[in-house]
Amino acid sequence: MLKLYYAPGTCALASHIALEEAGATYETVRLNFKAEDQKKPDYLKINPKARVPALVTDRGIITETPAILIYVAQSFPAAKLAPLDDPYALAKVQAFNSYLCSTVHVAHAHRPRGYRWADDPAAIEAMKKKVPQTVGECFALIEREMFAGPWVMGKDYTVCDGYLYTLSQWLAADGVDIDRTPKIAEHFRRVGERAAVRKAVADEAQLQSAA
Amino acid sequence: MLKLYYAPGTCALASHIALEEAGATYETVRLNFKAEDQKKPDYLKINPKARVPALVTDRGIITETPAILIYVAQSFPAAKLAPLDDPYALAKVQAFNSYLCSTVHVAHAHRPRGYRWADDPAAIEAMKKKVPQTVGECFALIEREMFAGPWVMGKDYTVCDGYLYTLSQWLAADGVDIDRTPKIAEHFRRVGERAAVRKAVADEAQLQSAA
Repeated sequence: MLKLYYAPGTCALASHIALEEAGATYETVRLNFKAEDQKKPDYLKINPKARVPALVTDRGIITETPAILIYVAQSFPAAKLAPLDDPYALAKVQAFNSYLCSTVHVAHAHRPRGYRWADDPAAIEAMKKKVPQTVGECFALIEREMFAGPWVMGKDYTVCDGYLYTLSQWLAADGVDIDRTPKIAEHFRRVGERAAVRKAVADEAQLQSAA
Repeated sequence: MLKLYYAPGTCALASHIALEEAGATYETVRLNFKAEDQKKPDYLKINPKARVPALVTDRGIITETPAILIYVAQSFPAAKLAPLDDPYALAKVQAFNSYLCSTVHVAHAHRPRGYRWADDPAAIEAMKKKVPQTVGECFALIEREMFAGPWVMGKDYTVCDGYLYTLSQWLAADGVDIDRTPKIAEHFRRVGERAAVRKAVADEAQLQSAA
């Protein structure tokens, strides 16, 4: 059975949502980042990058959100989570996911995880200071240039929607007012009402409070 | 006809190599980053992110290296540049590409482009200082955990190989000795001898010296 390793509040929620949307049979394993579970030897065997998500399949382990999202879409084609057979349409999905992982998520990470890129505490503080600007600019660009509506890619819900929802959750803590991007604000509320998303979010909240 | 916008010395080389490996008919348009071509209004209509690569197709424009690489593989299936019909094998390709774009490329970018994430000149200097360590750790992890050999994914050449080659080119300037990762060092030399790679590299060098 598929097994998703995640930590609450991380981008792993996007994969969790995709599994729910796909109607997959899967189990989850929660890591406690405060206890640094992700750096413990047992987990490093799962994912030597010491990150989440990691999806255990019957053939091996897949990491990286964009890879897991397309894997889920391809493994459960009936759920139609990505336009798999249309190279151009799939490339648009992939470009969006790639922008989220390599630019938006990275801009955000400079607030909680600046130590990845500098050792000097003053530099880490300087990074934090710029996050509202950089993350705000990313979301403004998405709103203006990428968001087709009503879903990210247009008329069909795709894995991009759960991924954008996941990163939209971080905006308040990053000092960005989601209402400055009204299409994304409305999308965030609408995605949050989907049964699959409510289920994934509730699962992570429940396990977190039980931990 | 496909048209690739690139700048010399950037990750766009990975897409250029993929187009050559695919046997695609395409043209290239060189941007001069020193003249900030990527921020000029005409280019912002092509890619509002002010980055390369951007691939113009008959249906629209695709950005982001991982998206372009799979698009090329899917559009030219005879070249067998990715295991498109095997969800798990494709996910491994995608996970590798995603790691390169969201972690390795980002680690590297803190040397030439730290201004993206902080305004303070001292912070930007502090970021530069850590690049040999962070990029070195990424390549050590690739060597140890991801590189199957003889190609990145094992017995078959994939789009991952041209992408890894592209980022390996930056190691010297990033202060990382490629010979500390001997499998990647040998791979870099071997990929560089492929006809398609020589062609793409020569095209970019020629246009650069002509500019």
